[in-house]
Amino acid sequence: MSRRVQLYDTTLRDGSQGEGVTFSVQDKLLITQRLDEAGFDFIEGGFPLSNPKDAEYFQRVRDLDLKHATVCAFGLTRRKNTAAEDDVTLKALVDAGTPAVTVVGKTWDLHVNEIMRIDRAENLAMIADSVAFLKAEGKRVIYDAEHFFDGYRANPDFALETLRAAADAGAEIVVLCDTNGGSLPDFVARAVHAAREAIRCPVGIHCHNDSDLATANTLAAVQAGAIQVQGTINGIGERCGNADLIAAAANLALKLDFDVLLPAQDGAGGVQHLTELSRFVYETANLALRRGQPFVGSSAFAHKGGMHVHAVNRLASSYEHIDPAKVGNERRILVSELSGRSNIVAAATKLKIDADDALMRTVLAKVVELEHAGYQFEAAEASFELLVKKCAGTFQSHFNRDHYRVNIESGQETRVAGEEPVTEASIKLRIPMPDGSEEVRHEVAEGDGPINALDAALRKALLPVYPQLAEVTLTDYKVRVINPTEGTAAKVRVMIESHGSGPGEPADWSTVGVSENVVEASWLALCDSIEYALARTAAPEATAEESVQPPVPSPS
Amino acid sequence: MSRRVQLYDTTLRDGSQGEGVTFSVQDKLLITQRLDEAGFDFIEGGFPLSNPKDAEYFQRVRDLDLKHATVCAFGLTRRKNTAAEDDVTLKALVDAGTPAVTVVGKTWDLHVNEIMRIDRAENLAMIADSVAFLKAEGKRVIYDAEHFFDGYRANPDFALETLRAAADAGAEIVVLCDTNGGSLPDFVARAVHAAREAIRCPVGIHCHNDSDLATANTLAAVQAGAIQVQGTINGIGERCGNADLIAAAANLALKLDFDVLLPAQDGAGGVQHLTELSRFVYETANLALRRGQPFVGSSAFAHKGGMHVHAVNRLASSYEHIDPAKVGNERRILVSELSGRSNIVAAATKLKIDADDALMRTVLAKVVELEHAGYQFEAAEASFELLVKKCAGTFQSHFNRDHYRVNIESGQETRVAGEEPVTEASIKLRIPMPDGSEEVRHEVAEGDGPINALDAALRKALLPVYPQLAEVTLTDYKVRVINPTEGTAAKVRVMIESHGSGPGEPADWSTVGVSENVVEASWLALCDSIEYALARTAAPEATAEESVQPPVPSPS
Repeated sequence: MSRRVQLYDTTLRDGSQGEGVTFSVQDKLLITQRLDEAGFDFIEGGFPLSNPKDAEYFQRVRDLDLKHATVCAFGLTRRKNTAAEDDVTLKALVDAGTPAVTVVGKTWDLHVNEIMRIDRAENLAMIADSVAFLKAEGKRVIYDAEHFFDGYRANPDFALETLRAAADAGAEIVVLCDTNGGSLPDFVARAVHAAREAIRCPVGIHCHNDSDLATANTLAAVQAGAIQVQGTINGIGERCGNADLIAAAANLALKLDFDVLLPAQDGAGGVQHLTELSRFVYETANLALRRGQPFVGSSAFAHKGGMHVHAVNRLASSYEHIDPAKVGNERRILVSELSGRSNIVAAATKLKIDADDALMRTVLAKVVELEHAGYQFEAAEASFELLVKKCAGTFQSHFNRDHYRVNIESGQETRVAGEEPVTEASIKLRIPMPDGSEEVRHEVAEGDGPINALDAALRKALLPVYPQLAEVTLTDYKVRVINPTEGTAAKVRVMIESHGSGPGEPADWSTVGVSENVVEASWLALCDSIEYALARTAAPEATAEESVQPPVPSPS
Repeated sequence: MSRRVQLYDTTLRDGSQGEGVTFSVQDKLLITQRLDEAGFDFIEGGFPLSNPKDAEYFQRVRDLDLKHATVCAFGLTRRKNTAAEDDVTLKALVDAGTPAVTVVGKTWDLHVNEIMRIDRAENLAMIADSVAFLKAEGKRVIYDAEHFFDGYRANPDFALETLRAAADAGAEIVVLCDTNGGSLPDFVARAVHAAREAIRCPVGIHCHNDSDLATANTLAAVQAGAIQVQGTINGIGERCGNADLIAAAANLALKLDFDVLLPAQDGAGGVQHLTELSRFVYETANLALRRGQPFVGSSAFAHKGGMHVHAVNRLASSYEHIDPAKVGNERRILVSELSGRSNIVAAATKLKIDADDALMRTVLAKVVELEHAGYQFEAAEASFELLVKKCAGTFQSHFNRDHYRVNIESGQETRVAGEEPVTEASIKLRIPMPDGSEEVRHEVAEGDGPINALDAALRKALLPVYPQLAEVTLTDYKVRVINPTEGTAAKVRVMIESHGSGPGEPADWSTVGVSENVVEASWLALCDSIEYALARTAAPEATAEESVQPPVPSPS
């Protein structure tokens, strides 16, 4: 038996059914390119009849120089009581010009009887005619058996008969779909075995995650002999999403020793770019990363408890199921009051600052003091890096505040949402210049709220001196009350996530600020974000000696 | 064989290891109460030695009147070469005063040899001594076998020997932990069988989701005979999280016909409150909901494809694996995102308002509109009651805003915590008096931050007219960003919890406000809190007719 499992990606079609997911044609082409580079076998590009965007995609994808992947167009079997050659969907599939096409047909008698309201013979003819027509047009035909598992549960004979109709008409593979996502792994395994016995072509698997079992069902199907896995990157898709090809590929390669994607290198089974691919798709789809996503999430190998950190430092496998490097991810040691010195050593080492005993003691004391005051550095690595630099004496600020003012003024109200007060912030900064002088900048801006106004004024003041800040955007803003029993006088902790698109590698970082005043807490987190951005774009990375000098601002 | 599966929740302990997760003591008590009401069997409240907050929790949890759940304190087996009775961790476990304790010990020879660096006999003695000591102190003892599956893979004899040490010393159950989350379901099933044959007490299962298989592994273990499932609400926890008890409970009850939580009612297997519970925990932990979360996510039964919507309208089960009502969730093509009409009926009944069809429609439409704007009423019952009153025409405001102003002014700073800006709020209110006149009150106050200053000014203006407000305190204040991809211009939702100590029964209530401006959102939530307080202390409860009159203010 071959250990190769084909990966069939439908991020661009089924994934785009997810709530909040939309891809431009350019997005789709970029993702196609990446999937090909990673070694995916099939890329389902869209449903050519459904919208003009998909039709344009199929035009333009021909110009890509794909090395490995086969692009597929997706559509339905012919309509009832229509000849295949007269069916607009099938015609659009042919016109898409892809070497392979995927057609989906009905397997569950409930759908045939209650939704389609056709007789079973016509359903079988719709499948057979469509596959045969596409085959005769020179296409490789992949047949998706919608609701196979529900259909097999309800009426196994009929369900298997629909598969035979597709296989006998020339489908190269029949893909068994758990369309509603309700099946359990042992049933999936049994039904896959039954399908394999019933037809002469191989079978594939297509799962949804409604029962939180899409990965398990996918693996069970492969272990039962399915040779193709359909799914989406990061599991995006309708309702609870499709099977996540990231988790499927990593498990198949690293846990079950199947061959997926590009040929294995350095024992990593072709999955060493999964983290990069996952983040690329999130970014392209403009979706928030899932921090705890298996294998590729930023928390997937993050260690918080002091005991765990201690053990991981002795022996990584003690609290890690795989080496994170195998999927292109990395270990992170979270800084926390509870977790002790091991965390600090790890972070300082990453910063290439000599973690001598004096620095260790200073950083540790400062972390304890700040965490006591309500700071949390575990999800604010940029603030932590600045803190370590400050303790090591290598931090140099790029601007100093003279003062800020924020004024919020409401009109009359009727206590409904939608009536927003007027908010204005003014700021006066002193910016150290290379010649030792100071530039004073005093600006005012409006905003949707106090933080937004302050951010706007701060940028207005800094941009002429540091134009590279135009590439920095705030991507998330979180507020949490720390000692809530004091009601509105409680301290608040603000966490800000920022994204820098250039120069250099795009990057994301998080910063933190704490104060009794939400505006001041936001100010502190904003400052850290901007200082981090400015240090990041200083080339080359300042050493301890160099950075004592004021930075060289860009010309205004 | 009994079909009952015990659910053991460790949201408050293992869940709090998740990145960005912190619970106040009050949060922990609220969650404990909810878990008990839902019928969870065990609630692991914390690690009493690890921090003073957990110690305080174990003090205060004794005052809760729990109906069903057993609270557990969590800790480690004794240290090496220490007598159990001299061990501080075990002593803290006893002192926590819970009827049951959970101790975790080492199962994997790698940890014993490489991390602990002790001999195997000492490891077995640490387990046996600790269990026996706690048992002798009158505790029910749950033994967590850390890394059982890795240990069983590496050295099955030794792994099983550690289980026997716990069972023979008196553990009532031995829980098999997939600590690193790396195991696959078929292996989990085999290892659970082996454990059951090796010891005389029952076994439980504790999974992590590093391979995206926590739910599948949990189900496999129960099918192999485990009688207890450990996990967290929404699967929060370190790295990729723990097994999600929501998905586990729903699958066990609805797919595998096990008995979980409270006795089944209306065929729903005790899981009909899972959606509410899931959202309550997200809100309390101030974490973003996962829209596509299986069973309980807001997209879990949302239909986007036109074909699917058509089919679902003909026959819901055509694209739904379960009836969403079974887990308290809703199909999204229905009129409202709120968990159902029953909420409206309940509120109206409490308010002695006739819940006729017209009112139902008005309230539902308003809820849909406000939820679309970012409101959430699930944890803001007081705001919801006010909304029902407004829709019924029985709401009468006790004060009207002319305007407010908030001014925040910082001095110079050195970017350290502790330097707070000066914040001042002024407010002008018009208060309707019994004789039909208006009293205008214009006050100014300082505060620790804009919300605190506004609250202070509001109270200063209202107290002379409504002295009963002196008994009302704000006990919690939460802010969350609703559409975070827009950075600081995102909308924020403020939730306020208030406590009224008199007159009448002491009570707690929650209110909500949404705006792009955090000050305005806070204003809306503050107003609702005060209106609710004033309506509450009006005796007798105003009826629809009475409340059309302005309230009778107390003498100033």
